[in-house]
Amino acid sequence: MKAKIEGIFTPHMVPLDTQGKICEMELRRYVEWLIGKGVHGLYPNGSTGEFVRFSPDERRRIVKIVCEQAGGRVPVLAGAAEATVRETIDACQTYAEYGARAVAIVSPFYYKLCPESVYAYFREIALNSPIDVTLYNIPMFASPIDVPTIRRLAEFERIVGIKDSSGDVPFMMRMIRAVQPIRPDFVFLTGWELVLVPMLLLGCHGGTNAISGVVPEATRRLFDLVRAGAIAEAMTLQYRLLELFDAMLYSADFPEGFRAGVELRGFSMGQSRQPMSAEQRIDRAGLQRVLQCILADFGFVEAPAEGCPPRSGAIERDRVAQITASVIHELRQRGAL
Amino acid sequence: MKAKIEGIFTPHMVPLDTQGKICEMELRRYVEWLIGKGVHGLYPNGSTGEFVRFSPDERRRIVKIVCEQAGGRVPVLAGAAEATVRETIDACQTYAEYGARAVAIVSPFYYKLCPESVYAYFREIALNSPIDVTLYNIPMFASPIDVPTIRRLAEFERIVGIKDSSGDVPFMMRMIRAVQPIRPDFVFLTGWELVLVPMLLLGCHGGTNAISGVVPEATRRLFDLVRAGAIAEAMTLQYRLLELFDAMLYSADFPEGFRAGVELRGFSMGQSRQPMSAEQRIDRAGLQRVLQCILADFGFVEAPAEGCPPRSGAIERDRVAQITASVIHELRQRGAL
Amino acid sequence: MKAKIEGIFTPHMVPLDTQGKICEMELRRYVEWLIGKGVHGLYPNGSTGEFVRFSPDERRRIVKIVCEQAGGRVPVLAGAAEATVRETIDACQTYAEYGARAVAIVSPFYYKLCPESVYAYFREIALNSPIDVTLYNIPMFASPIDVPTIRRLAEFERIVGIKDSSGDVPFMMRMIRAVQPIRPDFVFLTGWELVLVPMLLLGCHGGTNAISGVVPEATRRLFDLVRAGAIAEAMTLQYRLLELFDAMLYSADFPEGFRAGVELRGFSMGQSRQPMSAEQRIDRAGLQRVLQCILADFGFVEAPAEGCPPRSGAIERDRVAQITASVIHELRQRGAL
Amino acid sequence: MKAKIEGIFTPHMVPLDTQGKICEMELRRYVEWLIGKGVHGLYPNGSTGEFVRFSPDERRRIVKIVCEQAGGRVPVLAGAAEATVRETIDACQTYAEYGARAVAIVSPFYYKLCPESVYAYFREIALNSPIDVTLYNIPMFASPIDVPTIRRLAEFERIVGIKDSSGDVPFMMRMIRAVQPIRPDFVFLTGWELVLVPMLLLGCHGGTNAISGVVPEATRRLFDLVRAGAIAEAMTLQYRLLELFDAMLYSADFPEGFRAGVELRGFSMGQSRQPMSAEQRIDRAGLQRVLQCILADFGFVEAPAEGCPPRSGAIERDRVAQITASVIHELRQRGAL
Repeated sequence: MKAKIEGIFTPHMVPLDTQGKICEMELRRYVEWLIGKGVHGLYPNGSTGEFVRFSPDERRRIVKIVCEQAGGRVPVLAGAAEATVRETIDACQTYAEYGARAVAIVSPFYYKLCPESVYAYFREIALNSPIDVTLYNIPMFASPIDVPTIRRLAEFERIVGIKDSSGDVPFMMRMIRAVQPIRPDFVFLTGWELVLVPMLLLGCHGGTNAISGVVPEATRRLFDLVRAGAIAEAMTLQYRLLELFDAMLYSADFPEGFRAGVELRGFSMGQSRQPMSAEQRIDRAGLQRVLQCILADFGFVEAPAEGCPPRSGAIERDRVAQITASVIHELRQRGAL
Repeated sequence: MKAKIEGIFTPHMVPLDTQGKICEMELRRYVEWLIGKGVHGLYPNGSTGEFVRFSPDERRRIVKIVCEQAGGRVPVLAGAAEATVRETIDACQTYAEYGARAVAIVSPFYYKLCPESVYAYFREIALNSPIDVTLYNIPMFASPIDVPTIRRLAEFERIVGIKDSSGDVPFMMRMIRAVQPIRPDFVFLTGWELVLVPMLLLGCHGGTNAISGVVPEATRRLFDLVRAGAIAEAMTLQYRLLELFDAMLYSADFPEGFRAGVELRGFSMGQSRQPMSAEQRIDRAGLQRVLQCILADFGFVEAPAEGCPPRSGAIERDRVAQITASVIHELRQRGAL
Repeated sequence: MKAKIEGIFTPHMVPLDTQGKICEMELRRYVEWLIGKGVHGLYPNGSTGEFVRFSPDERRRIVKIVCEQAGGRVPVLAGAAEATVRETIDACQTYAEYGARAVAIVSPFYYKLCPESVYAYFREIALNSPIDVTLYNIPMFASPIDVPTIRRLAEFERIVGIKDSSGDVPFMMRMIRAVQPIRPDFVFLTGWELVLVPMLLLGCHGGTNAISGVVPEATRRLFDLVRAGAIAEAMTLQYRLLELFDAMLYSADFPEGFRAGVELRGFSMGQSRQPMSAEQRIDRAGLQRVLQCILADFGFVEAPAEGCPPRSGAIERDRVAQITASVIHELRQRGAL
Repeated sequence: MKAKIEGIFTPHMVPLDTQGKICEMELRRYVEWLIGKGVHGLYPNGSTGEFVRFSPDERRRIVKIVCEQAGGRVPVLAGAAEATVRETIDACQTYAEYGARAVAIVSPFYYKLCPESVYAYFREIALNSPIDVTLYNIPMFASPIDVPTIRRLAEFERIVGIKDSSGDVPFMMRMIRAVQPIRPDFVFLTGWELVLVPMLLLGCHGGTNAISGVVPEATRRLFDLVRAGAIAEAMTLQYRLLELFDAMLYSADFPEGFRAGVELRGFSMGQSRQPMSAEQRIDRAGLQRVLQCILADFGFVEAPAEGCPPRSGAIERDRVAQITASVIHELRQRGAL
């Protein structure tokens, strides 16, 4: 029987070596660590996983590695979007063979398509995919999937759920209300971790959240707390994730801040394929110090040797404060102060 | 001692007579009914109350009537925005004399002001108002108030809270996190009823919700359920409000759908000061039938004589179905069918 | 016979005295100056004229003063929007009596109305106004008026033209193409001075441009050049206006930068009714120095005593450079350098 | 010596065979026709050319065919954007070998990058490309390139121009004003045909316009008219292009309407790789009839046998009218009417 798609699926990043190529060993080690920390599933080739920055062959290789390493212990939801419908269906075929539980397919991007075109695109996939399909709605990057379109697409048995990264709470409620009467088994996942508690309370089955690649213990705990009805405690944790998420999301172009976070958990992620300017590299170093302080509060990592100045919640200011602290520490080490 | 600003404050509409003038008697009857149904407070001259469609004198008269009729049984939060800072401060003075608990002041509108200007505007009011002030953030209509600005404004004792109608859950969390450490007494109210349950769970003190002018029993019950920890039940009610809210919000220009709703509860609201075309009047009649069916499900009103066709959740389609049912009923009555 | 609505109509600002009240004498002097500099018409109570920051009585007084002072030498297009249709029609009546050539009425604002509501609003006015009406489309501040709505409204004889401040060139072409076949006399004015040359070339009859309140000679000359077919010369002037306009528009909340510009031409404008923070006052002083340098290049004013540093076109940087130059000059004056 | 990049470069579409593969023969015939009709250059792999719907190998093949067929008669501007900087630079190398005059590289898409990242991306390319580079700004689909970034990038000799598809007239003026003082040879091309006349008047060197793939004679004539100073005549032609462009752009998801247009000029384009629903196929047939009527007015094609109903300019209505006329014609043919 097929594994249920439920809980936190991690849209993980892909470690690169010094040549900028996929570092298989580190990817396997990272997957192993995520499973060990309690994630319910893995989600390669998501937006966090920078699928558009890999070649079609590399995307296949990533899924292959992840499926092998997971080895059936947790289900794999494989991002399968390619340049055209035909190639996307080919990828579905391949990922079925690799043993993925389902594929996640982002709505067509670059061009902004109308709902009828979005429907026609997913209809074609639903009719031809040999593996279960989850829709992936991320209106800030791709053509939006609206409620009537989701309702129509839910009539295809092959389409089993949706991952929504809009973070729009009422929109999720409208989807659930429109789809559940005709498909009680349809799966709703949220891709916006800042509203994970409310989304779970209103009926979502889980989330595909970038932050779970950095603090998998925390998102797992949040999920378990909600399921156990410990709402107040879950909400406290939700607030703590807010600071971490905002720091990773708004301090660098997505998903660079998350790469910085994963590195702090002990993985060698390599440099982004998107070039950075000299100034951006300094910013990133400052961000990493701030993240280290936040993660130290959680108890996940050690605080920086030079300590953590009080955080104001205003990332920009905190980063400057942290860089200053770090420079002073450095100068002291060298006896210059 | 001052009444606590907490719970559901109703941003009520204003009944007009056949001349388009304020109908004082009906307004008093409506206020009485709202108090009887359990609202925690009243909020005249809000966006739902169409404050921009009344003259400065009329706005004063509305607050006077409401304060008198409330007679201290529930606190009044009076919308006090006028054309300029000076006139706004005058209104604050007047509403203090009328016995309002506090004023609510929308951010400057028409021009889109930068945060520094928004700050300067509210600062001036904070320094001169003889009555407590709540900020009113409604970015879809007025200059947005951002988190750093709220944080700065919270340093003025006179500013005691914020009403936020963005409906943005993480934004509310950011505000609370930024302000509470320096002002533990600061009040957070949400103006977006679709997320009332999550907002209360994350720390809001209540809401100022247009829907509470139509189904005050339901919003009161939702508030009580959350306070009592009956989250699942509260969420079920939240889903039911979704259908009603969407029907009232998206079927006509705001706040016309809410006027249609209030009428169904037995109040004579008169015609909007914003003209309607012939086609819009037909649409509105259709909408009222749909609302009657939704409200009948709640048990608040009788279903239409011709019955309610099954609702699809798609308002446009439901309205057509309801108009059709209504026409057939009419023809049958006349023996034409 | 009615004066033709053609050429540059100045949406002028209103001088305030030290009490913040309308300074009639200075307003008359300013109007006189504008007429002397060749503007084709005057446009009180526009967005530049901050109509929303005056009371209904003040708005009437402004139009009265302007009509009197113009004394029939140039036509007056009077902004007549009030809180409701009824009051707007009253204002139309009054402005007809004052001798205005026509009124300009902005689409309803605050609420974002659908096209059908916008149509119903202007239809009501068209049926009841005793004076010619021009529509005023400014989608960044008010409900947009779309092409089909303009086409429908052009069927009312009372509606004689449109002022469009979107700056959208193809939109203007679509309007002209839709309306001219049924109303060859319909007047099209652009409110976006950055595209004045193209707009005149494609068939606009003129413009209502804030910048003409600062450099009326330049906008008049640009208009004359286009009419004379001297396109290259007109375009050179268009480029020069770009720098001035960007400086006034993007360096302060609209229309504060234009007030700074008018002051440099020798008028005492008083302080804005929108409060400014201490920091904003410093910024404004810096802006005024930059504007002085730009206007000095035109030959309209003297350069600042301390000279003008080379301008980069990047306002922010130029302002800082100018403030620096100004401080150094000041210190030198005092012998501190 | 390198050919000057000036005039109308056609971002042409790619004919597909019944298998959905590139139809080389038809592509060559189309290129030949475009050159014969007077286009100044060719631009394969643009947005109109659906570059994202081809594989990396197909994109190379398209450029190869086009360069060969052009054979040096007109310059080729080859779209070279690939998934990563490294692969983009590889494509630059290849297109240099194929004999392209320059490459055009769209700003990174999917993720919305900040200006600093956009700068770092193009900087890397500028330092490594063996062929001249033109920037491609299309903010509706890709990360925007702002004026300061363009100014910085213009310091690289390898970057020789920009194609801007924003259609924003003042933005183009700001770019020109910022860049020309440091790079008088920098090339500015507009990708928005609705403002081709104004853009040429204000200093653009030409355009890369989808419509030139449908009516190359018309865009060439428009360019020649502006160069000859026949502005009024050019503007009349600009108005005629408006109707055609709006019909192709707003009646179907981009660039499907343009494919319909190219087919009417006698080329077999095949079906889009983006699936269409049954309803969309009917819509497209209706659109093609409308286009045929518009093109018949130009004298480029025969009118449909059933004639052309008068056009209202409202595409939706015209399409319905045309479908009706077409059905009646069909029924008459069959003797059913």
